[in-house]
Amino acid sequence: MNEPTIGHRVWAIPEGYIPPESHGPAPEMTSHEAVCVLNASEKDASVELTVYFEDKEPVGPYRFKVPAQRTRHVRLNNLDDPQLIPMGTNYSSVIRSDVPIIVQHTRLDSRQAENALLSTIAFAVNE
Amino acid sequence: MNEPTIGHRVWAIPEGYIPPESHGPAPEMTSHEAVCVLNASEKDASVELTVYFEDKEPVGPYRFKVPAQRTRHVRLNNLDDPQLIPMGTNYSSVIRSDVPIIVQHTRLDSRQAENALLSTIAFAVNE
Amino acid sequence: MNEPTIGHRVWAIPEGYIPPESHGPAPEMTSHEAVCVLNASEKDASVELTVYFEDKEPVGPYRFKVPAQRTRHVRLNNLDDPQLIPMGTNYSSVIRSDVPIIVQHTRLDSRQAENALLSTIAFAVNE
Amino acid sequence: MNEPTIGHRVWAIPEGYIPPESHGPAPEMTSHEAVCVLNASEKDASVELTVYFEDKEPVGPYRFKVPAQRTRHVRLNNLDDPQLIPMGTNYSSVIRSDVPIIVQHTRLDSRQAENALLSTIAFAVNE
Repeated sequence: MNEPTIGHRVWAIPEGYIPPESHGPAPEMTSHEAVCVLNASEKDASVELTVYFEDKEPVGPYRFKVPAQRTRHVRLNNLDDPQLIPMGTNYSSVIRSDVPIIVQHTRLDSRQAENALLSTIAFAVNE
Repeated sequence: MNEPTIGHRVWAIPEGYIPPESHGPAPEMTSHEAVCVLNASEKDASVELTVYFEDKEPVGPYRFKVPAQRTRHVRLNNLDDPQLIPMGTNYSSVIRSDVPIIVQHTRLDSRQAENALLSTIAFAVNE
Repeated sequence: MNEPTIGHRVWAIPEGYIPPESHGPAPEMTSHEAVCVLNASEKDASVELTVYFEDKEPVGPYRFKVPAQRTRHVRLNNLDDPQLIPMGTNYSSVIRSDVPIIVQHTRLDSRQAENALLSTIAFAVNE
Repeated sequence: MNEPTIGHRVWAIPEGYIPPESHGPAPEMTSHEAVCVLNASEKDASVELTVYFEDKEPVGPYRFKVPAQRTRHVRLNNLDDPQLIPMGTNYSSVIRSDVPIIVQHTRLDSRQAENALLSTIAFAVNE
C-alpha cells in the first residue's frame, strides 16, 4: 500500500447547492452535499476548502485533517468555521491539501418525498 | 487565493435535454439543466456557449460574464439571446472563456412526481 | 467555431445495464442507456461501438454517423445491427471514431414508479 | 479490437457508502455500490481492491479476475474475503490491476420507496 503520489493537491467543484428542505429521518436522509476525500498516502493531510459565491467574496478557508491511509466524508452542511454555508444558495468550492488526495462530490436531495443523488469525481487541477 | 491558472478555456458537454414537464414549486423544482462555472482567477471571465443539435446548425454564442473569484450557475432554460433552447430536444454544448474556468453540468428532472438528478464535471479540452 | 481538435478518437464506458422494466409514457420514460456524442469538428464522423460482456465474446461493431457540427444521442436499446443488446445484462462499451469526438453516458431508470438518472463523461483514451 | 493500452493500472473512488436499507425485489433493487471494470486488453487482469475507512486501518486486498475482452460489475456488498464491508459506513476504495483497465463507480440507493442512482468514472491515477 505504498502509493505516496496518488492524487492531486488542488481540486475544484463548480456545483454547489444545499437544498433547504428534507424528507426522511435525520441525519441520513437530510438533504446535504459532501466532499469525500481519500488520503492514500503515508502522511496526514491538512486540507483547506474555500467557498465561492455568485454575489459576494469567497469565504474560507475551512480547515480539516485527513489522516494517512484514511478517508473523510465531509458534509458541507456541517462546516461552521468561519461560518455556515447558507442553504438554498449557489456556490462552488476549491480544495487544497498539503499532500496528494482524491476528491469526489456528492449531493443527496430529499426535497421531495423520494431522494435523488448526484456525484462526480471533482476536477483535478494540474500544478 | 492567488490561483490564476485553475481550469481550462474550452469545455464540452455532450448531453443536453431540457425535460418538457415538471412537478413541484417553480423555479426550484422546475426541470432544468445548468452549467455551473467557477472563475477562481483574479480576472473577470467573458464566456461564450454554443449549442449543437442533431439536425440543424449550431446556435450561439450565448454570452455571459463570471466575475473574478465568483461562481455562476446558468440555467440553460433561461438563455434567450439569440434564442431559447427548445425543450424536449437533444443538444450538446461547448463553452469557451477568455480566462481559465471550471465547468460542471447538472440536470434536475421532475417530469415524474419525484425528482431525479444527474451531474458530471464537463470535458476539459486541452489547448 | 473552428475547433477541429476537440475531443478524442477512443472512449470507454465500463458501466452498462439496460433495466428490463419501465414506468411512464414511452419512449421518453422508457428505461434506457444512451451515449451522447458531440462532433464539434468540420468533418463527419464514422463511429464504431463495441459491447463487452461478462461471459461471452464482444459484439460489434455497431456503426453510426455523427455529421460535422452535430450531436447525436444514441439509445443503446435501439441498436440492432449486428444484434440487440440484451436487457438486464451487465455490459461495457468502447467507442471509436475517425475524427475527434466527446462522449457522455446516461441512464434513465424507471423500474420503480419514479425515475432515476445517472450520467458521466466517458473515459477518454489517450492515443 | 487490438487495443492493449486502453486504461490505467491504478484507480481511486473516494465515495463509498452501502445504504443499510432497501425497497423492492432482491437482488436487482437492493441498495448497493458497484465497481464496473472493463478489461479491453488481450490479457486476463488480476485486480486488487483496498478499502479505506474514516477511523480504522485499510482492509484488503479483495482479489478478483477480469478475463481478457470482458467486463465485470462487482457489487461491493458481496465481497467477503477478507471480510464484508460494513453497511452504513463511509469508505473509499483503490483498485490496482496488472493490466490496464477502466473503472466506473455506481450506487443504487433504495432506502426510500423510489430508487436513486449515482455514477462517475473513477479517478485514473497516472503512473
